[in-house]
Amino acid sequence: MSVVDKIVSVRLEDDKDALVILDQTLLPNEVKYLELKSKEAIFEAIKKLRVRGAPAIGIAAAFGVYLCTKHVETDDYDEFKQAFTEVMEYLASSRPTAVNLFWALNRMERKLDSVKGLGIAEIKNCLRQEAWAIREEDANVCKAIGEYGLSLLKPGMGLLTHCNAGTIATAQYGTALAPFHLGQERGYQFKAYVDETRPLLQGARLTAWELKESNVDVTLVCDNMVSLLMRNGFIDACLVGCDRIAANGDFANKIGTSTLAVVANHYGVPVYVFGPTSTIDMKCESGDDIVIELRDESEISELWYEKRMAPVGIKAYNPAFDVTSHELVTAIITEKGIIKPPFDKSLAKIMTREMKHVKKDVE
Amino acid sequence: MSVVDKIVSVRLEDDKDALVILDQTLLPNEVKYLELKSKEAIFEAIKKLRVRGAPAIGIAAAFGVYLCTKHVETDDYDEFKQAFTEVMEYLASSRPTAVNLFWALNRMERKLDSVKGLGIAEIKNCLRQEAWAIREEDANVCKAIGEYGLSLLKPGMGLLTHCNAGTIATAQYGTALAPFHLGQERGYQFKAYVDETRPLLQGARLTAWELKESNVDVTLVCDNMVSLLMRNGFIDACLVGCDRIAANGDFANKIGTSTLAVVANHYGVPVYVFGPTSTIDMKCESGDDIVIELRDESEISELWYEKRMAPVGIKAYNPAFDVTSHELVTAIITEKGIIKPPFDKSLAKIMTREMKHVKKDVE
Repeated sequence: MSVVDKIVSVRLEDDKDALVILDQTLLPNEVKYLELKSKEAIFEAIKKLRVRGAPAIGIAAAFGVYLCTKHVETDDYDEFKQAFTEVMEYLASSRPTAVNLFWALNRMERKLDSVKGLGIAEIKNCLRQEAWAIREEDANVCKAIGEYGLSLLKPGMGLLTHCNAGTIATAQYGTALAPFHLGQERGYQFKAYVDETRPLLQGARLTAWELKESNVDVTLVCDNMVSLLMRNGFIDACLVGCDRIAANGDFANKIGTSTLAVVANHYGVPVYVFGPTSTIDMKCESGDDIVIELRDESEISELWYEKRMAPVGIKAYNPAFDVTSHELVTAIITEKGIIKPPFDKSLAKIMTREMKHVKKDVE
Repeated sequence: MSVVDKIVSVRLEDDKDALVILDQTLLPNEVKYLELKSKEAIFEAIKKLRVRGAPAIGIAAAFGVYLCTKHVETDDYDEFKQAFTEVMEYLASSRPTAVNLFWALNRMERKLDSVKGLGIAEIKNCLRQEAWAIREEDANVCKAIGEYGLSLLKPGMGLLTHCNAGTIATAQYGTALAPFHLGQERGYQFKAYVDETRPLLQGARLTAWELKESNVDVTLVCDNMVSLLMRNGFIDACLVGCDRIAANGDFANKIGTSTLAVVANHYGVPVYVFGPTSTIDMKCESGDDIVIELRDESEISELWYEKRMAPVGIKAYNPAFDVTSHELVTAIITEKGIIKPPFDKSLAKIMTREMKHVKKDVE
């Protein structure tokens, strides 16, 4: 059994009336699955980041809205829809900036609208199927991204990754981590290097754990060690996720990605960016149009430490993301194929093409 | 009064029979000066890194060996020398890899050898003067480095530094931090950016504190944020210390320096390397000859955190230093002047020249 089957960060257990999630806030110290049986419990899990990663949040919300309406006892569509809307609006308020959360809930609502006229039992069945479809589509997208990514790599390579774009953040496999898991299933024996990803330590807490569970040979390093690693010849490629890709190929991802990409470029190490085509925003011309969220200074100066490790009252600058220039990107790996420079042309091409006509490489 | 007069990390208080040191292990949470009155106390302070930084350790050892022999009651040189040697050997064993510790103790011993024949009271006086000379020479070296460094900078600049090459690591002013302190004394209003310097956090714990004490406008960032800072145009120059400079200009410094230098180079930001000429090792041909110390993995995976932030049993790679290639260095700033590329020629020239004949720029 692959680790991606073993670790399922979000799943519906219909017979138990439960949404089961892996509590990511307890990692890496405790592997605990929570059975969520009320809308309040699901709300809390999303809000407190027990479930995190855009696709995983969307899946949790879709299963959640189905679960919390499946026992609504009525034969009246409008009454059912009212109950559904209440749950939907409540869950939507758990993380007001999570685009994928709204997207998934809206899709569930459209499904409900489209089946008006059917019996309530059948409607509930349709909602369950739609939630499963959201999950399955994400799993398929990730698997496809992983296959394309793996085609760029050779057994035994040293691969560096940043933050967590993994199976626990998605339905399955993840994006940047998908090639690690697929490679492990197929005996590629990669040497994974995971940087800590300060300040929130997603690399140390989540990716190191996930890849270790997958039995990948994984080594934890500090973010500032990447130049030494590459100078030493330890790294054959960098695999990173992305939050948003602009029309010219610039992309936003977890803070530190751009530092890593600059250093990789200096040493001639390829930079592969992994993301579903849903992260490509053709209305965004370049990285300059991407607004970077500034987070609380205390995440740097106070979080995690038993005693303060920075002077009281020190100013800190804590951007959550950075923008990496497209010139530093070797290829963007999507479920529709591998996109290569010049990105302004190749991205436009892939975004207007039908899935079924897509060849592997878009240049 | 300048902060460098206010914070004196190592000083002799002869009337109290005490070596007074700033306990750096308590920073930034507590500013505590310890009065060390026995060789055991001095040994412990060096061993436990209460005093750290090569010059500061040398000064502490020189004052220490004087202090611990000043009350040896004898008129016999050989008897005094025996007592001196005992203290010297004991202090030398406190940090077996600290070259500067041995250098300072050996210099004290040579002084003792050179004054054989004088009365013991006069000998003790000579030892006291020699220890003060070691301190004063380092203060003068740092001041000169600072002046040369400052000449490269303009008021209002944004300056990034890494680790701690500061007043607390030296007699006074520090090396890479000297221009910050001198600039502050002269109204330069620099904007200092200090990276945390994982894993031991010398930037967050020591440099942020030292510059804040100096009233410099200081902002703490994570090591991985340097690309974003430079993309945003926040940084006009990088100022870093060095542990060893090879004959071709390659240099070793705290892990992360080379990542920073690569990124600075990408954005066209100058990289200034600060160090006394005593760190130039002409017998070391290039950075490839510098052996990098690997430290305990637990510094990354366990240190500082209240609970584990990395999976139990995870491998970690923890080099203490990295090597930065000379191609990335804009200038090396020493007490003898500013050394510019090509470094193989300019370093050879400065190392064979007499101090008094040195002009400011060596090209």
